[in-house]
Amino acid sequence: MKIIESVPNFSEGTNQETVNAILNAFRNTRGVRLLDSTYDSNYNRLVATIIGSPKAVEESLLCASDIAIERIDMRNHRGQHPRMGAVDVVPFIPIRDVTMDECVRFSKSYGRRLSQKHNLPVFLYDESARNEKRRDIDFLRRGEFEGLTEALKDKERKPDFGPAVPHPTAGATATGARGIMVGLNVNLSTPDLQIAKKIAKAIRAKSGGLANIKAMAARIEERNITQLGITNVNFIKTPLYRQLELIRIEAERYNVRIIGSEFCGMVPLDALISVVEYYLKLENFKREQVIDIHIPPD
Amino acid sequence: MKIIESVPNFSEGTNQETVNAILNAFRNTRGVRLLDSTYDSNYNRLVATIIGSPKAVEESLLCASDIAIERIDMRNHRGQHPRMGAVDVVPFIPIRDVTMDECVRFSKSYGRRLSQKHNLPVFLYDESARNEKRRDIDFLRRGEFEGLTEALKDKERKPDFGPAVPHPTAGATATGARGIMVGLNVNLSTPDLQIAKKIAKAIRAKSGGLANIKAMAARIEERNITQLGITNVNFIKTPLYRQLELIRIEAERYNVRIIGSEFCGMVPLDALISVVEYYLKLENFKREQVIDIHIPPD
Repeated sequence: MKIIESVPNFSEGTNQETVNAILNAFRNTRGVRLLDSTYDSNYNRLVATIIGSPKAVEESLLCASDIAIERIDMRNHRGQHPRMGAVDVVPFIPIRDVTMDECVRFSKSYGRRLSQKHNLPVFLYDESARNEKRRDIDFLRRGEFEGLTEALKDKERKPDFGPAVPHPTAGATATGARGIMVGLNVNLSTPDLQIAKKIAKAIRAKSGGLANIKAMAARIEERNITQLGITNVNFIKTPLYRQLELIRIEAERYNVRIIGSEFCGMVPLDALISVVEYYLKLENFKREQVIDIHIPPD
Repeated sequence: MKIIESVPNFSEGTNQETVNAILNAFRNTRGVRLLDSTYDSNYNRLVATIIGSPKAVEESLLCASDIAIERIDMRNHRGQHPRMGAVDVVPFIPIRDVTMDECVRFSKSYGRRLSQKHNLPVFLYDESARNEKRRDIDFLRRGEFEGLTEALKDKERKPDFGPAVPHPTAGATATGARGIMVGLNVNLSTPDLQIAKKIAKAIRAKSGGLANIKAMAARIEERNITQLGITNVNFIKTPLYRQLELIRIEAERYNVRIIGSEFCGMVPLDALISVVEYYLKLENFKREQVIDIHIPPD
């Protein structure tokens, strides 16, 4: 059975009615399960996690997008997270019996239909992007909603579907296929942000750390500690234990310890299994040995 | 949805036709999934792992037991594992939306029906046992098949169902409710069985080690190492990481290292999660964050 995941981001984290209306589009679509949703007024953003058959996921995304575009007016939107549209980003992630190429096709189908219905510019990013530069969502979103009119005049920023002018209230949308990302926040025993930043730099791929790892440092005022926000974009090649052990090693030179960690959102079983395999020195383990995957979901 | 597990043990590990006939009883019962089966001529024993609705599991067990009793003649049975009957042990294990008390009732229903159909003595063990002494399968099985006639004369060994004389070819059966057990073999860097035995003694509950842990030591001739065979009868109270770290600590005094480990049979997701939580210092993790448990089984 083909299963894909999507983690759509909508630019509304404050208005409870709009949040519910969007989430209900997922709750009410047969063949789709809403696994997680987070929103807050700080980011003013709603992030939902859904899985299901490709067809059902696409339909529920179109339905939720209609609601978001109808209800959200980006001209009045304020929030700390970069954003360019009411429906900001919609990834398509292969989970079971689906290839990345198929997810590229699903993203193009969704993007084309969304664009046609609302006369909205849509960009294809990551695995669906037309060139290397446009894989990067941050490149496509530069200038955010407010800078869209200008940005769309640049031929490097030409949308993949729809007009080269922003939708007046809904801006533009990015969609594309990508692999599963695992988010892990790691708390450090130091309140010193400079040290946390040095550790983040030491472990992230861009600055010479681990491949597939993005990391940023932040202070957690209420606990007087610092935290590394880490995104692993390929937990198969770069398992979670390696990421944690490298943090431990880099932190040690500052006499800093890892005092806790927390997953952001969903985690694939295989990511957990590789952690258990490492620390228990497990041999010959098969995921089919996990009882729970043989039990139908509630 | 109510789900239980059973791990029935049959006294046949050599005759492929009998093994298949027994396993087909599980494969062919609607509502039952055969998750695992192991058998070898050394133990001359078949161990199957099944899950399903309580009703379907009970029916498939009765069907498989009929086949085993019809085909297996204990008078000709040789094997290294202690055994007293063609259907040797049949546990009932709560998995979801089922209490231990319900599993006690399921085991009694199965035991009564099996006994009546075949005029076979049946013992209730573990959570279904009528007293503390009879919880122990080893106590009920003492003397094995060959000693059954004598043993059944002892009033402490009176069967819970059926006659106080063994079935001529099928002996007797033990059934009962119990919790999930997790089997883990841990390989040690030493070929010295005496050292492995000391480590086994140090970690098992009976001799002052960890609660809920049974352990035995063996030599693995072909690799020139030793192995601890460990059974954890309550992985919630005594998590797997604790068991492994204690082995590490006890092995260290002999300059022995853990060089690998292997799960025997099935493992619950929660047992893996507690390992990940410990080593990653995870906070606030919920099993619902594991994507895979939301996906229907193949």
